[in-house]
Amino acid sequence: MSELNSLPKRQLIARLDASQENFSEHLASLLAFEASEDEAIDSTVAQILADVKKRGDAAVLETTNRFDRLSANSVTDLEIGQAELQAALASLTPERRQALEMAAQRVRAYHEVQKNECGSAGFSYTEADGTVLGQKVTPLDRVGIYVPGGKAAYPSSVLMNAIPAKVAGVAEIIMVVPTPDGIKNPLVLAAAAIAGVDRVFTIGGAQAVAALAYGTATIPQVDKIVGPGNAYVAAAKRRVFGTVGIDMIAGPSEILVICDGTTDPDWIAMDLFSQAEHDELAQSILLCPDAAYLDAVSASIEKLLGDMPRHEIIRTSLANRGALIKVLDMQQACDIANSIAAEHLEISTENPQHWADRIRHAGAMFLGRFSSEALGDYCAGPNHVLPTSRTARFSSPLGVYDFQKRSSMIFVSEQGAQSLGKVAAELAYGEGLQAHARSAEYRLKS
Amino acid sequence: MSELNSLPKRQLIARLDASQENFSEHLASLLAFEASEDEAIDSTVAQILADVKKRGDAAVLETTNRFDRLSANSVTDLEIGQAELQAALASLTPERRQALEMAAQRVRAYHEVQKNECGSAGFSYTEADGTVLGQKVTPLDRVGIYVPGGKAAYPSSVLMNAIPAKVAGVAEIIMVVPTPDGIKNPLVLAAAAIAGVDRVFTIGGAQAVAALAYGTATIPQVDKIVGPGNAYVAAAKRRVFGTVGIDMIAGPSEILVICDGTTDPDWIAMDLFSQAEHDELAQSILLCPDAAYLDAVSASIEKLLGDMPRHEIIRTSLANRGALIKVLDMQQACDIANSIAAEHLEISTENPQHWADRIRHAGAMFLGRFSSEALGDYCAGPNHVLPTSRTARFSSPLGVYDFQKRSSMIFVSEQGAQSLGKVAAELAYGEGLQAHARSAEYRLKS
Repeated sequence: MSELNSLPKRQLIARLDASQENFSEHLASLLAFEASEDEAIDSTVAQILADVKKRGDAAVLETTNRFDRLSANSVTDLEIGQAELQAALASLTPERRQALEMAAQRVRAYHEVQKNECGSAGFSYTEADGTVLGQKVTPLDRVGIYVPGGKAAYPSSVLMNAIPAKVAGVAEIIMVVPTPDGIKNPLVLAAAAIAGVDRVFTIGGAQAVAALAYGTATIPQVDKIVGPGNAYVAAAKRRVFGTVGIDMIAGPSEILVICDGTTDPDWIAMDLFSQAEHDELAQSILLCPDAAYLDAVSASIEKLLGDMPRHEIIRTSLANRGALIKVLDMQQACDIANSIAAEHLEISTENPQHWADRIRHAGAMFLGRFSSEALGDYCAGPNHVLPTSRTARFSSPLGVYDFQKRSSMIFVSEQGAQSLGKVAAELAYGEGLQAHARSAEYRLKS
Repeated sequence: MSELNSLPKRQLIARLDASQENFSEHLASLLAFEASEDEAIDSTVAQILADVKKRGDAAVLETTNRFDRLSANSVTDLEIGQAELQAALASLTPERRQALEMAAQRVRAYHEVQKNECGSAGFSYTEADGTVLGQKVTPLDRVGIYVPGGKAAYPSSVLMNAIPAKVAGVAEIIMVVPTPDGIKNPLVLAAAAIAGVDRVFTIGGAQAVAALAYGTATIPQVDKIVGPGNAYVAAAKRRVFGTVGIDMIAGPSEILVICDGTTDPDWIAMDLFSQAEHDELAQSILLCPDAAYLDAVSASIEKLLGDMPRHEIIRTSLANRGALIKVLDMQQACDIANSIAAEHLEISTENPQHWADRIRHAGAMFLGRFSSEALGDYCAGPNHVLPTSRTARFSSPLGVYDFQKRSSMIFVSEQGAQSLGKVAAELAYGEGLQAHARSAEYRLKS
C-alpha cells in the first residue's frame, strides 16, 4: 500500500479510476489483507487448550480469575442465571427494549422462512425396484456462542448468532462472555434473554473456547462454536475445529457501494462511515460512473467527518483502506464487485434488481436508496454475520443451515441389491477392495 | 487402549457388554482417535506454500519433479488433455466402463434431487410496506479436486467429488492427481472423463494445494478445494482455509452396525471387513442385544478372514479398533449409536425405519439387510464423502450445497425505512456506533 500512503496528506480517501493503467494492481493492493499469524499467541493458546482439556474447571477458573481480574471460587460462580438475564432486560428503557424485541422478532421471522426454504424437511424418493434414497435433516444438539467483552460487545450479535440456532431447533445454547473486572453489559444480557439463550458463563478467551469444545464438570461440551472474538479466540477456534464445528474466522468488515450518481451524496458518505467506524482495518469503497458525483461524496465526507464521535477511527480506515472509484459504466461496476466479493454490497441505483442479477459474489446485497447497511446490521431480518475478505466466493451468511446437519438415507430393496451389487462388486475389484466386493455379492441371489 | 491391547492374542475382535461397569470408559478409549500433529510436516508444508505463492509455476515444477521423480520441462507438460482422458475411458473393459457409467448416472440423479430439495432456487418475500427480503443461491465459479496417487487412488472418489460440483453448476473443475514415477491410473482418468472434469494436472502434495489456492501462470486459482489426501495435503488444506474453502479433513473410516440378530452373520462379518480393509486405523463396531448372535459373527470372522487378500490390514484394524458389543435392547443400541455419531451406520433389522427415526447423528444410514455399506460406497447414489470421527454431530455428507453459496437480499422500501430506521438507530446508539445511527436516520422523512 506504499502508493496509497504517499497520497497527499489532506486527501481523506483515495480516488481511483478503473480505466487507469495498473488499476487492477491498485485494487489488489487496496484489498490485500492477511490476518497476522502470531506464533506467540498461537503457542499461548495451545497451552491454555491443553490445560483446560486436562484440568477442566480448575484451569478455567484460574485463567479466568487471572486474565479478567476476578476472584471467583468456582466455575459455578461464573454462571449467570436466568433471573439475572431477565433483570437486565427489565432494566432497559422501554424504547431500547422495544427496539431489541422488534429486531429479534424480525430476525426470527426471516430465519423461519429460511428454514422452510432450505430443505430442512429432508427428502426421500422411491425407485421402481423399491429402493428408497433420501436425506434426513436434524438440528445440532448443543451450540456455544462466543460474545466478546469490552468495546466490541454487541447485543445485536447475540441475536444474530442465537436466533438461527433456536429456529433450527438446537436444544441448548450456551453463551460465554468475558467480564473483565466483573463489568457486565446489561444490553448483552438482555439480548441473551430475548434470544432464548439457555445458559451464560462469564468466561472468555481461549479458556472459554476450550471449555465449550472439550466440556468440563460444570460447562457442557457443545457441538459447534460460533461468534466473533479477538486473536486468541480465533486461534483457539482454528485449533478446536474438528473436535467441534466452528463458523468462519471473520476478517475486518467491508462495505462496497455501487451508485448511479443520483443518491444524496451525504447518505452515501454516511454509509461509508458506518463501516469505517467499526475498526481502523474496516474497508469502505464506492464505485460510480460519474466523476462529479464522486467529487460530491468526497465533499460530503469532508463536511460530515468532524461531527462523528468516532472520527479518528473513520479517518484512518478511509485513508488506509477506502477508495472512491470512477468506473466506465454500471456493468463494469458489477464486474469489479464480483472480483471484490464484498461482505456488504449496496446497490444504490434506479432499478437495483437489474444490477443485482449481475452479481455472483456478495455476502449481502442492499438494494435501492433506502436500504442502508445499518438497517441490515440490526433489524431488517437477514443475518449480519457475513463472509468477509473475499470469502463470499465460497461461503454464506450465518443461517439456520449452520445449525443443522444432514444424514444420507439408503434403503436398498432385495431387488435393488441385485443390480447395484453387481456394479459395486465390479468397481470394488477395480479398486482392490475385495471385502467390499464380497459384501455386495453376498446380497446377490445365487 | 492399554486394556484392549492386553486381550488374549487369539481374540480377533474385542467383546464388550454395555451393562458392564466402566463400559462408557471402554467405549471412549475405543473411539479415541487424534490426528497426529506433526510439526515437521507442518513446517515443510508452510515452506512449500510460501514458495509456490512467491514463485508460482517454477516452484510447482521443481517440487513435482523432485518428489514424484519426473523430468517435466514446464507445468504445461504436467496437464493431461481431454483426449488422454477419453483414451483412458476407451481402454476399460466394457463391464468396468458400464459399471463406472452406471455409478456416475446414479450419483448424478441423487444429487439432482438434492439440488432441487436443498433450497437452490433461493427465496424472496414481500412485506406489507413493500420491503422485500430473500436469499440468492449461486454456484462457486471454480473448484479444485484433489485425488491421491498410489494405493488410495479411487475412481469412485473422483465421481463423488466432481459430480455434485457439476450438478451445482460450477463452471470449471480442476483436478490434481500426483503420478509418482509417471505412473497414471487409467480408472481415475476414465472417472474424470465421465464426471466431466475440465482440466487435470499431474501434481500432488502441498504444492498442488498451493497452486490451486493461490493460482499460478498455468494453474487457475480455485474457490474451494475438496478431496482426500495424506498428512501433507491435510496440513496444506488447513493452512489455505480462508483463502479458499475446503471440505472437512477426514479421519479414518468407520462403520457401526446395529443388528437385531437375524441377519446372516457372514453378511455382517463381511460388512465389518469392508470397513476394516481400508486401513489399520479404520473402525468396525457391531451392536446387538443377542449374545449368541455376537458369537456367531465372531465365528464368521474367524472363518472368513483367512480368505481375504487384505487380511493383515483387517486383522490389525479389528484387533485395535473393532468391537462386538452386547446391548440391553435396540433402544440402547440407538442411544450408543447417537453417542458414536458414526460415519456409516447399518441398521440391519426388521423395520429399520423404526430405529432410524431414533438416530440423530450419523453420516449415512443403511437401512435393512440388503443395504450393505459397499453399495453406498459405489453406486446407490448418495455421496460417499461423509463426516468421520464423531463430526456427524455437526457436519454433513458432501453435497451440492458444498458447491453453492448464498447471498442475503435486502430491499427496504421508503415506507419500510421509516420503521426500521428508528429501531436501527436506537440500537446503534446503544452500541456506540453513531454513523450507523445517522445512516439509518438520513432515510427518515423529516
